[in-house]
Amino acid sequence: MNNFSNRVCSMQASPIRKLVPFAQAAKADGVKVYHLNIGQPDIKTPKGFFDAVKNFDNDVLEYAVSQGIPELIEALQNYYKTYNMDFDKDELLITNGGSEALLFAMMATCDPGDRLLIPEPFYTNYNGFGQCVNVGVTPITTKAENGFHLPSKDEILAKIDDKVKAILISNPGNPTGAIYTKEELEMLAEIAIEKNLWIISDEVYREFVYDGLEYTSFGNLENVKDRVIIIDSVSKRYSACGARIGSIASKNKELIAQIMKLCQGRLCVPTLEQVGAVELYKTPVSYFKEVNDEYKKRRDVLYGELMKAEGVICEKPTGAFYIVAKLPVDNAEDFVKWMLTEFRVDGETVMATPAEGFYATPGLGKDEIRLAYILKEEDLRKAGEILRKGLEAYAKVNK
Amino acid sequence: MNNFSNRVCSMQASPIRKLVPFAQAAKADGVKVYHLNIGQPDIKTPKGFFDAVKNFDNDVLEYAVSQGIPELIEALQNYYKTYNMDFDKDELLITNGGSEALLFAMMATCDPGDRLLIPEPFYTNYNGFGQCVNVGVTPITTKAENGFHLPSKDEILAKIDDKVKAILISNPGNPTGAIYTKEELEMLAEIAIEKNLWIISDEVYREFVYDGLEYTSFGNLENVKDRVIIIDSVSKRYSACGARIGSIASKNKELIAQIMKLCQGRLCVPTLEQVGAVELYKTPVSYFKEVNDEYKKRRDVLYGELMKAEGVICEKPTGAFYIVAKLPVDNAEDFVKWMLTEFRVDGETVMATPAEGFYATPGLGKDEIRLAYILKEEDLRKAGEILRKGLEAYAKVNK
Repeated sequence: MNNFSNRVCSMQASPIRKLVPFAQAAKADGVKVYHLNIGQPDIKTPKGFFDAVKNFDNDVLEYAVSQGIPELIEALQNYYKTYNMDFDKDELLITNGGSEALLFAMMATCDPGDRLLIPEPFYTNYNGFGQCVNVGVTPITTKAENGFHLPSKDEILAKIDDKVKAILISNPGNPTGAIYTKEELEMLAEIAIEKNLWIISDEVYREFVYDGLEYTSFGNLENVKDRVIIIDSVSKRYSACGARIGSIASKNKELIAQIMKLCQGRLCVPTLEQVGAVELYKTPVSYFKEVNDEYKKRRDVLYGELMKAEGVICEKPTGAFYIVAKLPVDNAEDFVKWMLTEFRVDGETVMATPAEGFYATPGLGKDEIRLAYILKEEDLRKAGEILRKGLEAYAKVNK
Repeated sequence: MNNFSNRVCSMQASPIRKLVPFAQAAKADGVKVYHLNIGQPDIKTPKGFFDAVKNFDNDVLEYAVSQGIPELIEALQNYYKTYNMDFDKDELLITNGGSEALLFAMMATCDPGDRLLIPEPFYTNYNGFGQCVNVGVTPITTKAENGFHLPSKDEILAKIDDKVKAILISNPGNPTGAIYTKEELEMLAEIAIEKNLWIISDEVYREFVYDGLEYTSFGNLENVKDRVIIIDSVSKRYSACGARIGSIASKNKELIAQIMKLCQGRLCVPTLEQVGAVELYKTPVSYFKEVNDEYKKRRDVLYGELMKAEGVICEKPTGAFYIVAKLPVDNAEDFVKWMLTEFRVDGETVMATPAEGFYATPGLGKDEIRLAYILKEEDLRKAGEILRKGLEAYAKVNK
């Protein structure tokens, strides 16, 4: 009895997961492991969330409405207004995390065999979601050497055949930390119009933009407003990853009506988490400022350490809380494993994520890692040092 | 810009939804509407759920592990033990409601173009989930006249071609309220073995069995344990529909490992709801006894009223909290609409669900409705009376 579907068999188990036993073994040996491999922030979740949940006082925990509770829809409307995006109530849907929002956007725009155009490296689960609904990925390769910015319009156009139905981008980028310029977005918008494509814009890191850089949302481009689907989530913005509250926003009301059928199929998103999320959206702007300053400091610390290491190539990322760095190694996965099993500085080591899993093109990313700067400054400085020393030692071992 | 996927276009908007405006209009006119159309129980959620959520005291609401938090996995293990089902920890997964459990079971067993064998009438969303992942439904028709029990083995075998990959049943049945006998399950098990099919057993109403009837779970049949996938949920069992905590259980560890990849893709199920659900599973058995007695009483009241109406055909259901009744009308949807727009008894009326949407075979169910007996006895008696009087009046109007 082993007849699994091809689609589920084609999915890879989490690339991080196979390294977890090595981290566990190190910890069992009393080694302290700095986890730069996961995107779980240590920032406090705004207290309003917990207070609202604690004040919930119905006797029966009933189904919520499929769209999302009206209070949360309204909170989301107000949130978008601060970014000069004006969404009607019937242009918004609450989802089980950004994950479900992505899955639904793919289901609504692509049939089996269709494809998404995605700049690589990209969030691994884009591929996973695609596989489970039989949607392929056509990658646009971007490079560490120029901060993972987009190639030329012609290069992108050359990738598009009639199976491509949507452009999917993460901006700010996970795993790259890149912020696309307004010109890059306008180029993608032109392409979407010329080729009649949807634009699925994953903007869950919207507030994580540094160095006073201008951030443009696809929601601000007037000429594509009927084809833009904005994916969002409270996870990173409010350090509430465990709430699993995401959303879909689109000025295309017919699209929202189509996706509403998917929402009705799964009935609703948890009631309590929605009640809590309403309060998250009331968090004062000062919170973002504080969080932003903190992450910027962390980025500078980690990037600074990386730059001290010989042969590391990466532009300073300007958004999200990730760095993808090209290392002077042949096989980054082997290096990450070696760090966990062999290398210690005062009984401590570092866990990174090999970046190969973020690429769709075979062979790319083999010498790259992704680092999340989600630890406090002091720990991050130590982790950066250990990583640098590890690279030096690894170079000697592999001479 | 209207290129939606065929799969999303093929999905129907909720059949209940198009009648909602008529209910809203009636209410706006001051009419009281008894809702027998929805499966939202009025039973109190065990207080332990809310207490656990209120006692949660982490500062950061972090991602939970993809499988589900260990405490909940253990609680689920213990729960199944009371039904003589022994699941290892790696044979269980927590999901976003029974809905996600169903979707994942379909994805793991069926590729696009494959089919599920399902006794009809069935839970409408089976079809919806199937459509969004391109899986078809091959119905086995069951009838009100014999309490919606299964046809003969030969009749079922004749429906199966090589595109059918799994049998999907709901037991106790939604919308029928039927409990399959042990012999019926054994027959399906034989078929599954002969045709090498998976068995997806939706048992979310497991505790809702009346009249001292023996209930057999597919988890209790030894000869198919490697091909049974049990779908479960806290929604109905503990009147916690808004928690969206479901689960998948299977003795087939490889299947669980495959579905784990889907779980990793969506990262995790909300943390707080899982913390609460742990306590639900500690609810004493006396709770079920009380709830069960209450629903049995309600069933008797509603069924009694229905039987007073001339021409209504239905066997007394023995499980869940639904009745599907064949009415002496040509078009049940028209009747339901007429009740909402035209018929009142002392300023009150009743909303039922037309049953056509529960059938895959075109034309079936046109003269049937589903009723949920989820109101308290007194209200249910009134609602039953109004429905009966409505049928009499409708017969006169349509003579």
